[in-house]
Amino acid sequence: MTEQPPAPGSRGVTRRAVLGGGLLGAAAVGAAGFAAGRAAASAGEPAPDTRAAGTYPFTGRHQAGIVTPAQDRLYLASFDVTTDDREDLVALLQRWTTIAARLTQGLSAGPYGAASGPYDAPPDDTGEAADLPAAGLTVTFGFGRSLFVAADGTDRFGLADRLPDALVELPHFPADALDPARSDGDLVVQACADDPQVAVHAIRNLSRAAFGAATIRWTQLGYGRTSSTSTAQTTPRNLFGFKDGTANLKAEEPDELERHVWVGEDAAAHDSRDSSWLVGGTYLVARRIRMQIETWDRTSLREQEALVGRTKGEGAPLSGGEELTEPDFEVTGREGTPLVALNSHVRLAHPTHNDGVRMLRRGYNFTDGNDSLGRLDAGLFFIAFVRDPRTHYVPMQTTLSRDDGLMEYLQHTGSGLFAVPPGVPDGSLVTGSDGTPITTSHSPFVGQALFA
Amino acid sequence: MTEQPPAPGSRGVTRRAVLGGGLLGAAAVGAAGFAAGRAAASAGEPAPDTRAAGTYPFTGRHQAGIVTPAQDRLYLASFDVTTDDREDLVALLQRWTTIAARLTQGLSAGPYGAASGPYDAPPDDTGEAADLPAAGLTVTFGFGRSLFVAADGTDRFGLADRLPDALVELPHFPADALDPARSDGDLVVQACADDPQVAVHAIRNLSRAAFGAATIRWTQLGYGRTSSTSTAQTTPRNLFGFKDGTANLKAEEPDELERHVWVGEDAAAHDSRDSSWLVGGTYLVARRIRMQIETWDRTSLREQEALVGRTKGEGAPLSGGEELTEPDFEVTGREGTPLVALNSHVRLAHPTHNDGVRMLRRGYNFTDGNDSLGRLDAGLFFIAFVRDPRTHYVPMQTTLSRDDGLMEYLQHTGSGLFAVPPGVPDGSLVTGSDGTPITTSHSPFVGQALFA
Repeated sequence: MTEQPPAPGSRGVTRRAVLGGGLLGAAAVGAAGFAAGRAAASAGEPAPDTRAAGTYPFTGRHQAGIVTPAQDRLYLASFDVTTDDREDLVALLQRWTTIAARLTQGLSAGPYGAASGPYDAPPDDTGEAADLPAAGLTVTFGFGRSLFVAADGTDRFGLADRLPDALVELPHFPADALDPARSDGDLVVQACADDPQVAVHAIRNLSRAAFGAATIRWTQLGYGRTSSTSTAQTTPRNLFGFKDGTANLKAEEPDELERHVWVGEDAAAHDSRDSSWLVGGTYLVARRIRMQIETWDRTSLREQEALVGRTKGEGAPLSGGEELTEPDFEVTGREGTPLVALNSHVRLAHPTHNDGVRMLRRGYNFTDGNDSLGRLDAGLFFIAFVRDPRTHYVPMQTTLSRDDGLMEYLQHTGSGLFAVPPGVPDGSLVTGSDGTPITTSHSPFVGQALFA
Repeated sequence: MTEQPPAPGSRGVTRRAVLGGGLLGAAAVGAAGFAAGRAAASAGEPAPDTRAAGTYPFTGRHQAGIVTPAQDRLYLASFDVTTDDREDLVALLQRWTTIAARLTQGLSAGPYGAASGPYDAPPDDTGEAADLPAAGLTVTFGFGRSLFVAADGTDRFGLADRLPDALVELPHFPADALDPARSDGDLVVQACADDPQVAVHAIRNLSRAAFGAATIRWTQLGYGRTSSTSTAQTTPRNLFGFKDGTANLKAEEPDELERHVWVGEDAAAHDSRDSSWLVGGTYLVARRIRMQIETWDRTSLREQEALVGRTKGEGAPLSGGEELTEPDFEVTGREGTPLVALNSHVRLAHPTHNDGVRMLRRGYNFTDGNDSLGRLDAGLFFIAFVRDPRTHYVPMQTTLSRDDGLMEYLQHTGSGLFAVPPGVPDGSLVTGSDGTPITTSHSPFVGQALFA
């Protein structure tokens, strides 16, 4: 058998899905925004698990993976660009766009898949997701400040005059303990899915496609979402055991999203350089927040609830009501003490104490082994999407880092800020005769306007 | 509100499930062995996700988590015992048994749960799984050689005369690159579940209950199972993109399990010391096997299939047939070359080349970030259960480490061998008036016969 290479496509599993409206951006179907995942299995394969077979459109005004109902699992990778050639960078983004468009629709990374094609070449796809459905995969790309201005000040790619004013260097916040090996990067790729193997497979195949142009700088696996981004989702719990993100921005609030998440024409108009390429995009703030789990677990229920400002069970504000009741910061108990303490997280993070700003949070719990003292290296990988980190993140984090009682149990160990360009327009991808996307030297790509 | 502590149980979420036959070891229901998870939600809580609400009995002749159909996710922790007091060790195992019995049935770690109970004490449970179902959680305990004979030769717990002959120090295999910080340990706890947050929650609460008696030595998160342990499961793929564990021992082969997995009376009868406490138990072999992902991904499909000895798509032996077809090691192609190569993994690992021995494999894919060169630190966390590692693991691994062509892409970076005692007998747990298990100084516990 090893002596008779088969014709391409004649054997093995190719990860496939019939391309419907999903890829081309037709309206999403169903409450969760899933298009039907119609995976065609090779003969002899078990039928795919249709419960998780949903796909989200890759194209659209905004990238997917932002207001998409937060999937259960995350794998996020930051990359350093290793080429100095602008054309190589563009070609990388073209390849990434094509591969992401394929993978999110349940296809393999390339047309031959994991187990067919030229027998003396490496397969198109690494294969570990060959039998798995798309599992709601989204892939979201962003650009770090160092892509525009390198650490040594050089303008490697001729992008310095496109640096948005808001793509700042984040300040050093009190109690920051950032590890450079877990921070920053030229490019970021956020893969979210309901199956971690699908998310890891996406990053692995995109990393493979980056060979010679970019290498992984750091990665983060997140196993439990800590935010809801849709009113259809229940509020999850973080590793403090509390419900998190109750007041999060939701997909069902389009006006609020325009106000707090999407970069508008107005922002670009006031920028000192040409940042019009980012209109319709947003900023991704990533913070790896280690929790002092063991110390927290020895704290009384009273102390825990006072620090958070909510009950641990229901998640209701300590001023009364239920989870979704707005906290009343004025109401006091005996001796005039506010029921929601002055140093409580819910008070300090609330829009009324932050000039009315809101964030779209999309973070995950993480557990990365343990330290030499046997303490879990675990916590919250905070992700937020905001229209301007200068107004929507830095002031709040400055307050929290300084005053939040929870900070005694928190340490920020990694950080990143990335400009997230708008989506690839519906209908713009180059497709082959079977409708699947292909890369050419003219392929549209995520962030194309930056290079125009 | 902070001034009026509520009565225990009057507020918040307590993780609960009505105790049916599951905890007390009645026959499992349904093909997957799930007992019905009848979680009772507090008023106002969303209904739990019943798809994943299954529970497995904690008690029985054998511990759960061995022939239990392999769940999707793993969190495994190795512990060093820090006390030198035998009674402290026994008390730890009593607490662990009670907590594991509770958690596997969808209960919180203690009777008050995460959000009720004495308001000025830390909660019984850390809370991050408060709204989650049992998700098929199993917790499996084992004892390392160092529990019997410490590195300095001391007999800390009076167990030296109970050391089973087969609980050996594993030899150094060719190409081993073991990190002591990822190897060995006095105790091991394997938590498997279909939700990683449930598995992490279990280890965290057991670790918390170990305070003052044991600390975590190392942990491993596994996100994708790489073996099936039931004929009802499909064969998963490892990070080489190949189906793994096709020939694995299955729960539906009780005679083979007796022969290859469970320690029998005969083994104990021939031991040089009294190891009768282990009858009905087994051994857990753990190996953290890093894969050289990037190098593998540049290898041709031909080379990949030749090294594995199976097709990448279907997983069929290269001698022909389908996935479940037995490989024919005699059949040759042109020039007399065997179709299943002499250095192929499937040939070297096959029972016919290993004195007929079989293992119950139960491993997981892992991805632990990346190294400083941007390469993924990813691979296979190999777990196997065998009745005697001297006959069922060491010879095969010696052959594989020396001759397996795949070894060029593999590096063993962690290792552990643990004796896994039999289960806590059905009906033996001390329960309160509501049927939930409670710890007393007389509580039965996992491995109790070792201390008798």
